[in-house]
Amino acid sequence: MNMQKDITIVGAGLVGSLLSIFLSKRAHKVTIYERRADMRINNAAAGRSINLALSDRGIRALEKAGLMGEVEKICIPMHGRYVHLADGSSNFQPYGKEGQYINSISRADLNILLLNACEQNEVALNFSLKCDQIDFDKNEISFVDGYSENIRIEKPDIIFGADGSYSASRLQHQVHSSMFDYHQFYIDYGYKELSIPPGKNGEFLLEKNALHIWPRGNYMLIALPNMNGSFTATLFFPFHGEPSFESLKTPDQVNEFFKTTFKDVFPQMTTLEEDYFTNPASPLVTVKCYPWVRDNHFSLIGDAAHAMVPFFGQGMNCGFEDCFVLDSLIEKYGDDWHTILEKFQDSRKPNADAIADMALNNFVEMRNKVADEGFILQKKIESWFAGMYPTKWIPAYSMVTFNPDISYSEALRRGQIQDRIMEEVLELENIKDDWKNSRVENAIISGYQKYFNEKI
Amino acid sequence: MNMQKDITIVGAGLVGSLLSIFLSKRAHKVTIYERRADMRINNAAAGRSINLALSDRGIRALEKAGLMGEVEKICIPMHGRYVHLADGSSNFQPYGKEGQYINSISRADLNILLLNACEQNEVALNFSLKCDQIDFDKNEISFVDGYSENIRIEKPDIIFGADGSYSASRLQHQVHSSMFDYHQFYIDYGYKELSIPPGKNGEFLLEKNALHIWPRGNYMLIALPNMNGSFTATLFFPFHGEPSFESLKTPDQVNEFFKTTFKDVFPQMTTLEEDYFTNPASPLVTVKCYPWVRDNHFSLIGDAAHAMVPFFGQGMNCGFEDCFVLDSLIEKYGDDWHTILEKFQDSRKPNADAIADMALNNFVEMRNKVADEGFILQKKIESWFAGMYPTKWIPAYSMVTFNPDISYSEALRRGQIQDRIMEEVLELENIKDDWKNSRVENAIISGYQKYFNEKI
Repeated sequence: MNMQKDITIVGAGLVGSLLSIFLSKRAHKVTIYERRADMRINNAAAGRSINLALSDRGIRALEKAGLMGEVEKICIPMHGRYVHLADGSSNFQPYGKEGQYINSISRADLNILLLNACEQNEVALNFSLKCDQIDFDKNEISFVDGYSENIRIEKPDIIFGADGSYSASRLQHQVHSSMFDYHQFYIDYGYKELSIPPGKNGEFLLEKNALHIWPRGNYMLIALPNMNGSFTATLFFPFHGEPSFESLKTPDQVNEFFKTTFKDVFPQMTTLEEDYFTNPASPLVTVKCYPWVRDNHFSLIGDAAHAMVPFFGQGMNCGFEDCFVLDSLIEKYGDDWHTILEKFQDSRKPNADAIADMALNNFVEMRNKVADEGFILQKKIESWFAGMYPTKWIPAYSMVTFNPDISYSEALRRGQIQDRIMEEVLELENIKDDWKNSRVENAIISGYQKYFNEKI
Repeated sequence: MNMQKDITIVGAGLVGSLLSIFLSKRAHKVTIYERRADMRINNAAAGRSINLALSDRGIRALEKAGLMGEVEKICIPMHGRYVHLADGSSNFQPYGKEGQYINSISRADLNILLLNACEQNEVALNFSLKCDQIDFDKNEISFVDGYSENIRIEKPDIIFGADGSYSASRLQHQVHSSMFDYHQFYIDYGYKELSIPPGKNGEFLLEKNALHIWPRGNYMLIALPNMNGSFTATLFFPFHGEPSFESLKTPDQVNEFFKTTFKDVFPQMTTLEEDYFTNPASPLVTVKCYPWVRDNHFSLIGDAAHAMVPFFGQGMNCGFEDCFVLDSLIEKYGDDWHTILEKFQDSRKPNADAIADMALNNFVEMRNKVADEGFILQKKIESWFAGMYPTKWIPAYSMVTFNPDISYSEALRRGQIQDRIMEEVLELENIKDDWKNSRVENAIISGYQKYFNEKI
């Protein structure tokens, strides 16, 4: 029996290219079609340097694909949040336990690394071909050539839609479904990328191994380090109101605003004016849909199946985990693609929903709570308690970021219960001044037994 | 100044045709494009006779358009729910006060009446032309001819998308928006139309002036009267599980199921087998989206803007109310289409959301609660109390159905509070046996003051 399938992947982004490598390693014939030009030749992201936070779920997938050795070379570890308060003071909040960190990585560099790996793995890459129509009855997919406008039609055994938040293959799936649940919504905030250039000798002008945050209540600035000594800063900001992208219109207004609001980093943002007026204010979308799959011949994957806002740093990691799970299912079910895709959907859909919700919630945490005394105290107490009961109590952020064996939906569930317990603990008398004691330990244990309904 | 606009309406259904009449009466040049053939010539709904419940919001709009005199002639008043219980017993639950009723009306007959009125009002009607692409920058809209496949391009001043739940114009709007919130979801139930033919001499075989319901817990059958003595019955039924559309596969299974489950009406359903296997099991979708409008030149309206499940009988009424509100805004703002469309959206969006939610909730009420003693008691007590305090307490169903001056969102808000009050009242001792007294009256008054925070 020939188990080799002819597989088409729509999209040569991070998830499409990693997926193709997994499938190719399983001896399938894999072809990728990408709407954009080859970024290795024609750098589309020229002048912009977007970076992402790679953490354990993504790393586990890259390791399984045998790529982590290469990827590690372009990673900058970030051990915690470096919080810059409005009064100019700052503090450092570790992400997890000693030795746990997330990684700043350039989206473009990682994508290029993956595309090169695709070619080493005999994946056929096609660029400037835009997915146009899909006839799901025949599994016929057509692409429009970005230059000639010629139509190219393919008839693979299986199609994966890995073409991101604004997926064209998902639109075809939607339009040709009789019952398709589809939710797409935008928050009232956009983001704009800005830069903090390196010092004269290429040195980092802020602490290198941290994710910097300037929380300002209903908005924030963050910055992640790049390999060349610069940081990419991102302003998450309301579209309307005061202040907002709408209200900051002139160079003077922008300079004045940054000077007073982000005073400690303003002097380093030497390209602020140019960045602000060149780079767009981009929207932030959440997409949930169902079903993702059609029988044994079509599936959405990555952002195309579940776009989320970036505040938990899990968009890429979740997409890579999709690939990891899919590959594990292929391992288990071999040629039974109906079962593979069905189980893929059943296992990933609730987890994608959970991380999308957590990502929305985390915006409030990042832009506001990290500057809040009560929140900082809660994190300290949790961290202390977790040190004593490491298998019982894992902070929500750690479950999501450092514990791929705990699913997103389980992390959401446990995190919500833990928050409820901590809410009660934070109401204990004098908790602020006196918490490293058996009184607090016992209060947490009793809350744990009450809400988790299990002995600690 | 020439205030006349060239207006294109996509869709010649109920809302599109009524809208065109309002606009034409305001001296605009109105053209409708409809995907289907002219139903007056080529009856697309042949063999199927769908009826709807026309109530006060719809009537108010038809009156404003000067059409209610004609429409009334094809209406059959329904004064309440005629509930057929599983044990073969039945009861009648009036919809409102004495003299209040809703109307059974044939969708096809009403649509034909409106299309004829369009022509009398100089609306240009075009059939078999399917909306294909919209270029919103140029306000250019293209249609494909269903026969010749020729493309026809129009460039009106204003486009209204009135093309229903599966709106093609909405899809164009979605695809060409940078920030468009879109929610579309299906419930796990479908509906299938069945028939109860008239008696030998054309007589009604069930009580004529009522909406019949056979509530059966997680599913139900309903029936509305037609002018010819027949009833159109609709089975709302799970797609999967036991029993479901999936589980009833053979004529024997269907007959056996109806015979035992709907035993009082089974003998009258003489075409059951044919109906069941001819008519499709159709899905039930809810659509919410935002924004509906683009500046001064595009708006969605009716189901295209807000599709809802049919359980409150408000889909058409809400769409007609859209037209009523839009016409009132034109009255007020004349040629200022930017303001007209913006205020239209601001006023209708929260109300459309509210009725879509109420429609989902009402399914549980219809298929289950109407057979529940506690529910029936609550309705009786509410009706008694409302009789004493008619301006203070209006049952939620009545607010939605008989009180167009109360918006859907206000009806939702007040209804939820009233339910909360009644929940407490129903827990009073011996409430079942003894409720027409000052104890219960005072309990409701005190709940009212507590939750509405106002004196009764």
